[in-house]
Amino acid sequence: MSDTPIVRRRSSGPRLNDISDSRVNDAKVQSQYQPYKDAAWGFVNHWYPALFSNELAEDAVEGIQICGIPIVLRRVDGKIYALKDQCVHRGVRMSAKPMCLTKDTISCWYHGFTFDLKDGKLSTIAGNPDDKLIGTTGVTTYPVEEVAGMIFVFVREDDFPLDDVPPLSEDLPIRFPDNDERFPHPLWPSAPSLLDKDVVVRGMHRTGFANWRIACENGFDNAHILVHKDNAIIHAKDWVLPLGIVPTADDCIATVEDESGPKGLVQWLFTEKWNPVLKNEKVGLEIDNPVARPYRTSVFLPGVLMVENWPEEHVVQYEWYVPITDDTYEYWEVLVRVCPTEKERKAFDYRFEHFYKPLCLHGFNDCDLYAREAMHDFYADGTGWDNEQLVATDVSPITWRKVASRWNRGIAKPGRGVDGAIKAGSIRMKRTAEGKAPAYFVEKIEEEN
Amino acid sequence: MSDTPIVRRRSSGPRLNDISDSRVNDAKVQSQYQPYKDAAWGFVNHWYPALFSNELAEDAVEGIQICGIPIVLRRVDGKIYALKDQCVHRGVRMSAKPMCLTKDTISCWYHGFTFDLKDGKLSTIAGNPDDKLIGTTGVTTYPVEEVAGMIFVFVREDDFPLDDVPPLSEDLPIRFPDNDERFPHPLWPSAPSLLDKDVVVRGMHRTGFANWRIACENGFDNAHILVHKDNAIIHAKDWVLPLGIVPTADDCIATVEDESGPKGLVQWLFTEKWNPVLKNEKVGLEIDNPVARPYRTSVFLPGVLMVENWPEEHVVQYEWYVPITDDTYEYWEVLVRVCPTEKERKAFDYRFEHFYKPLCLHGFNDCDLYAREAMHDFYADGTGWDNEQLVATDVSPITWRKVASRWNRGIAKPGRGVDGAIKAGSIRMKRTAEGKAPAYFVEKIEEEN
Amino acid sequence: MSDTPIVRRRSSGPRLNDISDSRVNDAKVQSQYQPYKDAAWGFVNHWYPALFSNELAEDAVEGIQICGIPIVLRRVDGKIYALKDQCVHRGVRMSAKPMCLTKDTISCWYHGFTFDLKDGKLSTIAGNPDDKLIGTTGVTTYPVEEVAGMIFVFVREDDFPLDDVPPLSEDLPIRFPDNDERFPHPLWPSAPSLLDKDVVVRGMHRTGFANWRIACENGFDNAHILVHKDNAIIHAKDWVLPLGIVPTADDCIATVEDESGPKGLVQWLFTEKWNPVLKNEKVGLEIDNPVARPYRTSVFLPGVLMVENWPEEHVVQYEWYVPITDDTYEYWEVLVRVCPTEKERKAFDYRFEHFYKPLCLHGFNDCDLYAREAMHDFYADGTGWDNEQLVATDVSPITWRKVASRWNRGIAKPGRGVDGAIKAGSIRMKRTAEGKAPAYFVEKIEEEN
Repeated sequence: MSDTPIVRRRSSGPRLNDISDSRVNDAKVQSQYQPYKDAAWGFVNHWYPALFSNELAEDAVEGIQICGIPIVLRRVDGKIYALKDQCVHRGVRMSAKPMCLTKDTISCWYHGFTFDLKDGKLSTIAGNPDDKLIGTTGVTTYPVEEVAGMIFVFVREDDFPLDDVPPLSEDLPIRFPDNDERFPHPLWPSAPSLLDKDVVVRGMHRTGFANWRIACENGFDNAHILVHKDNAIIHAKDWVLPLGIVPTADDCIATVEDESGPKGLVQWLFTEKWNPVLKNEKVGLEIDNPVARPYRTSVFLPGVLMVENWPEEHVVQYEWYVPITDDTYEYWEVLVRVCPTEKERKAFDYRFEHFYKPLCLHGFNDCDLYAREAMHDFYADGTGWDNEQLVATDVSPITWRKVASRWNRGIAKPGRGVDGAIKAGSIRMKRTAEGKAPAYFVEKIEEEN
Repeated sequence: MSDTPIVRRRSSGPRLNDISDSRVNDAKVQSQYQPYKDAAWGFVNHWYPALFSNELAEDAVEGIQICGIPIVLRRVDGKIYALKDQCVHRGVRMSAKPMCLTKDTISCWYHGFTFDLKDGKLSTIAGNPDDKLIGTTGVTTYPVEEVAGMIFVFVREDDFPLDDVPPLSEDLPIRFPDNDERFPHPLWPSAPSLLDKDVVVRGMHRTGFANWRIACENGFDNAHILVHKDNAIIHAKDWVLPLGIVPTADDCIATVEDESGPKGLVQWLFTEKWNPVLKNEKVGLEIDNPVARPYRTSVFLPGVLMVENWPEEHVVQYEWYVPITDDTYEYWEVLVRVCPTEKERKAFDYRFEHFYKPLCLHGFNDCDLYAREAMHDFYADGTGWDNEQLVATDVSPITWRKVASRWNRGIAKPGRGVDGAIKAGSIRMKRTAEGKAPAYFVEKIEEEN
Repeated sequence: MSDTPIVRRRSSGPRLNDISDSRVNDAKVQSQYQPYKDAAWGFVNHWYPALFSNELAEDAVEGIQICGIPIVLRRVDGKIYALKDQCVHRGVRMSAKPMCLTKDTISCWYHGFTFDLKDGKLSTIAGNPDDKLIGTTGVTTYPVEEVAGMIFVFVREDDFPLDDVPPLSEDLPIRFPDNDERFPHPLWPSAPSLLDKDVVVRGMHRTGFANWRIACENGFDNAHILVHKDNAIIHAKDWVLPLGIVPTADDCIATVEDESGPKGLVQWLFTEKWNPVLKNEKVGLEIDNPVARPYRTSVFLPGVLMVENWPEEHVVQYEWYVPITDDTYEYWEVLVRVCPTEKERKAFDYRFEHFYKPLCLHGFNDCDLYAREAMHDFYADGTGWDNEQLVATDVSPITWRKVASRWNRGIAKPGRGVDGAIKAGSIRMKRTAEGKAPAYFVEKIEEEN
């Protein structure tokens, strides 16, 4: 299978005009996703990517922020620990000036409060070892999983029981070939998964300036072809995109809501349930012979995009839109391929550096980055959710909003006492004056003595 | 008439101390201009300058913001169309990445929503031409007038009837010689108007950092001579300014409130109704022989300054303080002269470039720009309007506030879903970190593919 | 006395575990310092340092902001006057463009409102000398004291009676040798005072980015030794710091609350009431032979730190954390020594430039600057005061909070109509885009004419 003219099974089923009114975004529909509208700071009690493995060397410490929660990660003897990055004493971020006195603790650089990496307990205070507070308090810990070169953290509320933490797989897209039968894909090979044997993951992450939901909805939006029509990859590959694709049936999207396992949706792209639009007389556009790579997009809680068969066969692209605050997100783009041999691994690396990264993760997805930014003002004050006027192709975000509202494990509270809780404090202004925009990583303190 | 010592008709009428208490800015007076105090985001349903004609070439698209309303302008076959620059779908600004598929539409670059330039109707969606939403919605259109090299837009509320849109002349200063009898001006020739035959307009606009009312009140403020006393134009012309000018009569200002036509005020400067102050013993200042250009300032809704006989005979300076948000305004300065011949036109151009622009629009008016900025903190949180202590010379702003309160066609609602609605969102911080202050124009998206 | 091993009087009194629960920061304790929690903008009606004497030359004018109050200072014939730096007319800061027409007034550059330096009365308006407002209003004046090269201003509320202004000495730390008997100090010579004869003061001030209380509490915090352990001065002097010091008695801190005189606290450091901690088995740290300079920290209203015997014998370091807004403070660090002879004066100067300034005021105290910044997010939205978890060593800030709550002369109201009242106005954004962070000094208007 390659970049050949699109062959698709035509359907005699319902056409666009028959699509039921359930697709309309009226007040009744909106009420079904109120929790989603409330989730400006993200969904909490979920697994999120925090760092690539190679961003946290042995003994290194890094601070990040997810869903308004400051998190510090430390790697000891290969194992990674994650704790709330806010000392119980005076609230400073430990990661700003890492101080680790033993292998099983992290200490606050300010007053020596020392926390056990395993359970977060305040195990001692360096210069005050007999204090009554010791042993009676601590910081929240976050379960960590490291798979395929990625570090995932379960970002939980302080009182979410560790016993209830689900496996990482519940917050990753469905896997193949396990789901081949349920979600057949005659046009491409089974998509690889982060959890596959011999899998190789290559990618990048960077801070985006918009609410995470705006970013996420852009990821699986079938109607934004226009943004990408002039990307170099389209022209290099001689693809000819249709003007758009429209749903033709009520079941154009399948939701995945099994009792256990990930919750999300799969779009029946490149089937008779979605029709390419080749002509628009009103604006005088007509596509003769659309040629494109067939792919399928899915999205799962807490906001993980899977693009099967993209940018090439045997490769899949995953994306995360990790909430940092209510107006910044960390944008993760990773490409996954199973490479059992060193030769395949090298070939994938090579292709990543010289094709996927410049033309796809940058060239192609850079356009998504500005599209999300462009939407942000409209949604920033909360009025956009009520004022948007959605259309048939928006069945995708509407379905997602409903699924996410039903199955999220918690709505993050607005950040308090952290960066971004107050948008224009003097420290932010000072940092901005120095040319630094809001960011995901904690900046390390630079000392001159 | 030239820069000769001021000859003025002395009056035996009421002197400063006789001026009635109606001039005092007490609570009763303030209640008469409450609408003005509420108009932080400007007066809506008025004509405002949007661009100079040469800023919008054939087929060009530009985005601006007035009174918190995003507006996109496109010129087709010479004619200019203005629409709300916020796609009904997901709220992005169409002007950020102009896409025009036909001569009579503008399309949103994100999902291809296509709006009719004439009536703003959603006429199609590029990749979804059969959607039910088409034809049922659209964006607000704004009437446009292009005169004398300036593009004016009637910035209306979404539900302000097009049938009720007044002619542009209702939002421009009164004209001469039509008003010569009513507002005689023995000291100078009739001021030219933007609407005159053979008129030439030269000028500039730039973003100012203050509320538009603060800016506007500075324009016709008779008492701020001090700010300008060291301007190069004063010294180049050997003008000797008085210390100040003070009103001597209750009727020192005439309001213009005819049933139809512009609403505003004309100040009887250089008559017996205003006295120059030549001496202040307390601070040991005395002016022997004031020499100055006689001029007259007027202001009309929605905030248009007219300075007759300035900077020279046969020339008039108009200014607008177009609200962008509640703390930025677009400052327009234009000089107008009637030039029936090419030779006169060239001479005016030449004088504009080498005298008016550097010494007046910059040198002189730059000082007004910083004066307005200097006032802003005091008024920014709304407390300044109550705490200011006005004096006799402030009869001008007080009269203006009352006239504007009586005759404005609507108070702009605070911007929602637009730039500046939230002052310190992450996108603003990012832009600021890149060295970009809040601005009037929409920045175009730069693509690298 | 020099940098010898610490000899301390051991006590047989109560040990750490015996310290009463009154030291715990429970709700009852917190209620005792609610006024302190309310004082985000500082304590008003107190003496604060404004400028060094050499920052205000004869006839110079400077504008600053303390506790949200804009203040302008002018020096005439050596004497300094301080007035509210906000013209009663339209609220601009007079210091932005100083205009002084006579020796006994300051005029506003905008409309010539002229205020008497001595009583702040509006004594004339340059171009409007007969206005009724003259003589009926004015700006608040602030008492000024200039001692030892420092200019102090009594920052009062508009209605705080001048007759009630206490002497400067009430807002400076207690003096020695007067207090030698009450606060004996066998380990060092009597600390010099700003008010001593022949005193020399050298130091610096700069803007810090945090709330002033956060900054102040860092100053006399006995438990933050860790922050300083790698400072060059420690290593240059071969000091070996203990891990920490902990209180051993309820009376480890003496409060000073005499009917008249300064209000504050003195910590009994380097006595049996505080024990050095030499060992922490949990983190495997042990100090064999601590060697350190003995010193004593005190803090007095409105937030003046005194570090006796630091950085050397006969020298004392004072610090102020002058509130500018609720999230910026002016950080003052001065070193004081009595130098009766020119030779001693020169030697002190020399030592200041080449040792104290680089290694102490910078090297050492720079670390405090970042520590305060690091705390700010946690406290910025007000939640930190409730969420912090204090320990035995925090007896110092808790005692301070209580003393300050009992004896402050007023809680500053949030700034209104001044810089920082609104955090992200367009002017701030513009200034930030130009690379300028929020600051203490008013920027002078630059004119180009």
